[in-house]
Amino acid sequence: MKSDIDRLMMARGLDAIVVQGPDGLGAVNAPFNYLVKGQHLTGNVIKLRGRPPQLLFGSMERLQAEASGLDLVPMSKWNVPQIMKQHPERLGASVELWRQIFASLGVRGRVGWYGVGESGAFLALVERLKGVAPDVTIVGEYEKSVIDEARRTKDAQEIEMLADVGRRAAEIVRNVIAFIGAHRASDDVVVDADKRPVKIGDVKALIRRELDRLALDHPEPVIFAQGRDAGIPHANGDDAAPLRTGETIVFDFFPKDRRTGYYHDMTRTFCIGHATSDAQRVYDDVRAVFDLIMSSLTVGQRSRHYQDVTCEEFTRRGHKTPDKHWPLEEGYCHSLGHGLGLEVHEPLAFSSFVDRGDVLEPGSVFTIEPGLYYPDRRIGVRVEDTVAVMPDGTIRSLTPAPYDLIIPLRG
Amino acid sequence: MKSDIDRLMMARGLDAIVVQGPDGLGAVNAPFNYLVKGQHLTGNVIKLRGRPPQLLFGSMERLQAEASGLDLVPMSKWNVPQIMKQHPERLGASVELWRQIFASLGVRGRVGWYGVGESGAFLALVERLKGVAPDVTIVGEYEKSVIDEARRTKDAQEIEMLADVGRRAAEIVRNVIAFIGAHRASDDVVVDADKRPVKIGDVKALIRRELDRLALDHPEPVIFAQGRDAGIPHANGDDAAPLRTGETIVFDFFPKDRRTGYYHDMTRTFCIGHATSDAQRVYDDVRAVFDLIMSSLTVGQRSRHYQDVTCEEFTRRGHKTPDKHWPLEEGYCHSLGHGLGLEVHEPLAFSSFVDRGDVLEPGSVFTIEPGLYYPDRRIGVRVEDTVAVMPDGTIRSLTPAPYDLIIPLRG
Repeated sequence: MKSDIDRLMMARGLDAIVVQGPDGLGAVNAPFNYLVKGQHLTGNVIKLRGRPPQLLFGSMERLQAEASGLDLVPMSKWNVPQIMKQHPERLGASVELWRQIFASLGVRGRVGWYGVGESGAFLALVERLKGVAPDVTIVGEYEKSVIDEARRTKDAQEIEMLADVGRRAAEIVRNVIAFIGAHRASDDVVVDADKRPVKIGDVKALIRRELDRLALDHPEPVIFAQGRDAGIPHANGDDAAPLRTGETIVFDFFPKDRRTGYYHDMTRTFCIGHATSDAQRVYDDVRAVFDLIMSSLTVGQRSRHYQDVTCEEFTRRGHKTPDKHWPLEEGYCHSLGHGLGLEVHEPLAFSSFVDRGDVLEPGSVFTIEPGLYYPDRRIGVRVEDTVAVMPDGTIRSLTPAPYDLIIPLRG
Repeated sequence: MKSDIDRLMMARGLDAIVVQGPDGLGAVNAPFNYLVKGQHLTGNVIKLRGRPPQLLFGSMERLQAEASGLDLVPMSKWNVPQIMKQHPERLGASVELWRQIFASLGVRGRVGWYGVGESGAFLALVERLKGVAPDVTIVGEYEKSVIDEARRTKDAQEIEMLADVGRRAAEIVRNVIAFIGAHRASDDVVVDADKRPVKIGDVKALIRRELDRLALDHPEPVIFAQGRDAGIPHANGDDAAPLRTGETIVFDFFPKDRRTGYYHDMTRTFCIGHATSDAQRVYDDVRAVFDLIMSSLTVGQRSRHYQDVTCEEFTRRGHKTPDKHWPLEEGYCHSLGHGLGLEVHEPLAFSSFVDRGDVLEPGSVFTIEPGLYYPDRRIGVRVEDTVAVMPDGTIRSLTPAPYDLIIPLRG
């Protein structure tokens, strides 16, 4: 949580942190969004240990800066035009500007640097800064960084925002089910009242309208994949393909709130009209594992434990699993879940490959998403909820949507 | 253009380049999108000088990898599970994986690194790589990097994709004008047939529906700002505010194609029903400068020249300009334009502060956007087209939308 940042800085021996917020990266620059509360602006947050964070902002974005609730420092405090005239090379100007910013805000010692930007440009900046600001050492943290660790546990307000995204996501999924179910089948193709095939692209258009209606964004493509594509975990589905009865459809939906930037992540698997017996068997195996894991989640347990249980269960049911087989393109070929918040994937790992000691703790928010994939049999099944460990240690699914495999056709 | 990359690598003494494409950053990681043609996937592109680029991809995204058209290298070529078991610390595992990738693909010498990611994590990786892969030197370029320079000039196919986004953007702007014009005024508020005020949020909802209809995205908020907010260049406008007659509205619209990722950028200024004489005068000044610049654009001319002409003209008309005044929150307080392509802002500068020698050349695509801002008088005016220098050196606006200030009310 944000209240952990000073303690984390102390533990890492950091005197200050910089969180960069470059133009155009607002939507994916989660460390920056975390501090400016989702405002879209160009700027940088600087925090000295034990002091409140300060937002350096440009006057064209003063309304957004005010809405961040942070202490504000206008960039006009530094004479940028003069610096640019004295340093016509862009890197030289940047280095001189950072030197002046560090000097006037009292930034010195070990300085952690966070946020998203062009990697190569940052490397060039750090190397030149060494000569110009010798009392500052820029520190890069690869994992479990100050900001990652603070973000790893969500406070009560964040969990409520995440639950709210989940309610809207589930509403959309229910409306997608109702839309499909209102049609009928001709041979094995779903058709509308004029006997025209209903296509995956039609479902995706409905989803986009629903996202807009409920103030959600979906920056990456929605996964709505059928048949062979359902059997490839990240295939998005072919917009031009008609919906077919009997075949599995994997619908993986991960929208984010337009204002706050918090995500939801859920998956349902459908068979329209009926399921083949092969599809039903695979679904039953996934669903059994999903239910087993969901009912056994316990605060204080290592996340890796649940991946191990999942592999044991799938192995017992005759499927290949990543603890024993690699590379793996069928069976259970991924991990059980991941942390989630201002990014779809946040560090809380359920991997077979390594145990980093992650533990479910109050404020953990993560997905549980067992799946089985048989592209050659045109089958893929995944079932996924977003789950929160509440402040009192209880476990709560944030995904109030039905799990039913079959969507009956009532058209 | 992409065909320049080998020449640029040679000029910088680079033996290879890496373009990183981390998960979740697809939409903003322009250097990566440039090489994978807008496919959404996690992976890395590696190119040895004189050899075609290779895409390292994971099997869950093999359909997207195939659609990139690049030479493909599956990540299963390297035994990631074993590496992770031997290096439980995540940084150690990454460093070992990169070492093995470099060794098996023959990457050595000076290696340029591009693409977007967590700055601090990249710094940590580079520092550890030094000890482990001593025959590789990672080079960061701050500006005019290989990829930036290649992207600076667009080939004929890219210009056609950009023109196509412009046609759709202009269609939306015309539909917004028609939507507003179909209403009527009650006192100075625009109202619908039921006498309910029409709000900025209603216009933005229309814009979102239109974006979806025409397969466009708009990752950052649309600017539709009225009155005082129009006088603050990057204010987004208040969704709850009713449209008012007479006051200037700045509509800055920068959608991107959902599939290719190419942007358009345009601004129109409206007064609904009528304009105050003050607003009309400010608009006439902006429009005169816009027309002057658009008619004088010439291949081979420095971009900075046009910023100088703009400042001279605005000064002559009694407005403050950034070549003489700083900081500046009214008058003409920004630069004349910027390059544009897979990012809204690309390096082709029209700044008063420094001349980096940028020149209009065949394949240049950029905005021209003079503006004047008087927030205390509740006035802001900006007019903006996207412009291309065609392969034959002719200048072409890519923004086929009307410039009219006044939207007559016909409701």
